[in-house]
Amino acid sequence: MRHSNFVGVYGHTALDVIYNSDKFPSPNTTVELKSRQELFGGTGANLVRIASTLGVPTALASHVGSDFPQDFMDALKKSGVDTTDVVKVRGQRTPFVIMISDSEHNQIGFVDQAAVLEQDRLPIRTHTADSSKFVHIGTGRPSYMLKVAKRAKGRKKTVCFDPAQEIHYVYTPETLKAIMGYTDIFFCNSAELERAKSYLNLKEDVELLSYVNMIVNTRGGDGSRIITEDDEIIVGTIKADKVVDTTGAGDGYRAGFYAGLNKSLPFEECAWVGAATASFIVESIGAQNKLPTWDMVQRRAARRKCV
Amino acid sequence: MRHSNFVGVYGHTALDVIYNSDKFPSPNTTVELKSRQELFGGTGANLVRIASTLGVPTALASHVGSDFPQDFMDALKKSGVDTTDVVKVRGQRTPFVIMISDSEHNQIGFVDQAAVLEQDRLPIRTHTADSSKFVHIGTGRPSYMLKVAKRAKGRKKTVCFDPAQEIHYVYTPETLKAIMGYTDIFFCNSAELERAKSYLNLKEDVELLSYVNMIVNTRGGDGSRIITEDDEIIVGTIKADKVVDTTGAGDGYRAGFYAGLNKSLPFEECAWVGAATASFIVESIGAQNKLPTWDMVQRRAARRKCV
Repeated sequence: MRHSNFVGVYGHTALDVIYNSDKFPSPNTTVELKSRQELFGGTGANLVRIASTLGVPTALASHVGSDFPQDFMDALKKSGVDTTDVVKVRGQRTPFVIMISDSEHNQIGFVDQAAVLEQDRLPIRTHTADSSKFVHIGTGRPSYMLKVAKRAKGRKKTVCFDPAQEIHYVYTPETLKAIMGYTDIFFCNSAELERAKSYLNLKEDVELLSYVNMIVNTRGGDGSRIITEDDEIIVGTIKADKVVDTTGAGDGYRAGFYAGLNKSLPFEECAWVGAATASFIVESIGAQNKLPTWDMVQRRAARRKCV
Repeated sequence: MRHSNFVGVYGHTALDVIYNSDKFPSPNTTVELKSRQELFGGTGANLVRIASTLGVPTALASHVGSDFPQDFMDALKKSGVDTTDVVKVRGQRTPFVIMISDSEHNQIGFVDQAAVLEQDRLPIRTHTADSSKFVHIGTGRPSYMLKVAKRAKGRKKTVCFDPAQEIHYVYTPETLKAIMGYTDIFFCNSAELERAKSYLNLKEDVELLSYVNMIVNTRGGDGSRIITEDDEIIVGTIKADKVVDTTGAGDGYRAGFYAGLNKSLPFEECAWVGAATASFIVESIGAQNKLPTWDMVQRRAARRKCV
């Protein structure tokens, strides 16, 4: 089958609103927010913009609001993303995250799902799944994502499932199990891996392989692991010039991983490219400010491996 | 001098965005916000809409953003407010407050001053002061409010100063003292009264009368006090049907107080009208959802006094 896209991503396109505050409010008090910054974000948009810039043909399926900024849409298109399935939901707002840092650099965050909640009643967007070889099911409503997983599986796509932090507060054991039944590759950090095992009543990581063919487990500063029936591959990290903001590091890893798959590299090398990509993303605020090219990540992946 | 308005109010016109959340985030965590409600708010807009509905000719001076909702402007006009000085600042957002309630009904709040910060560089709007008998200086930038106080005083207006909660985090001893020098009537709740005395190095409430002619001290469920050289008038509360949300209770009191002054009632009766007005405001969410008429507050003020 010919595909116009290598990876089609279902996930959030969101605005990250970043503030400082002298301190966090204690219950029943109000604090003033200072030095507002608004950044393009959302795990879906992060992944596709980074992957596209690495040369991977990508499509994005997201629900945004009627207030969706034109410059965000322009940025997606300019990066080469197929935005056919980026849909404005009339009368809804674009999902946003407010992150507030106090004077000691602690952060608290608030998520408003806004337009994404409409996924529970909307038909699925099919172009992104149908046009792609890999279908990446990221953050969003479980009922919607289950339909996407079924359709993708029915059309013999490789289904990658990556509920991210939403595994903790959006998914239930039942909804997780339903989508895992259609999943080929499960992406998770270590807390998400623990949550998945607990929801599925499993003890060992490898037991997840009764559901999926491969687990890609990102472990922050400890690198990553790829678990298959045959093998457990342990991969290290790639040193950044300096770490400014770790937002989007996981999205960068995934984008690099797909870029490696797109070049038919072995899984281990895909993981190194992922780590190299993440090392660029953490060097600027937000996930979409400093997008490395394939040459940049290749060079770093070759020279800065830390094991 | 003939005035087209009885009271001209300088203060915030803001959006109150109200959310629920299962719990508040501990440092370095994110929580999901639920059941969003957006209400018209801001101490300035609250005061004038309530006062206008009570039949008081009022003007409002506020800085809002280019995103200011037309239905909010329409509501102000429909209430009869002179909105000549409600100014959209290009490229800025309308000030907003996010209030988040947890499952135990505790609240935390976040204020983004947005367009109001521009007051530090903008010339003052003069129509509201020049057209009014009473000039009510509410929340906003101290540098701007000092210029308003000077102009109002120079034109023999009665200057009322009501910095509200901003006395704690926007004012300094110096900026407070500067505006107090032009003030005739000082409005404050008890915490704000303590802060004013501390900033001015005073011990007793009456010592404030070296700056102002009258202190109107609202005391929540304990009623209010009016302090002048001659007298200290203690006034009780008016019973609400049911207390739903105390947001805007203080603004309601002030609106009722002005309505009493506008009818040339004695101060004590003005305070009772203020309490009666507040008793309606607390019966609905936000401050601008249930606006009582003069007849409604008169009837309650006559029948429900609690001392």
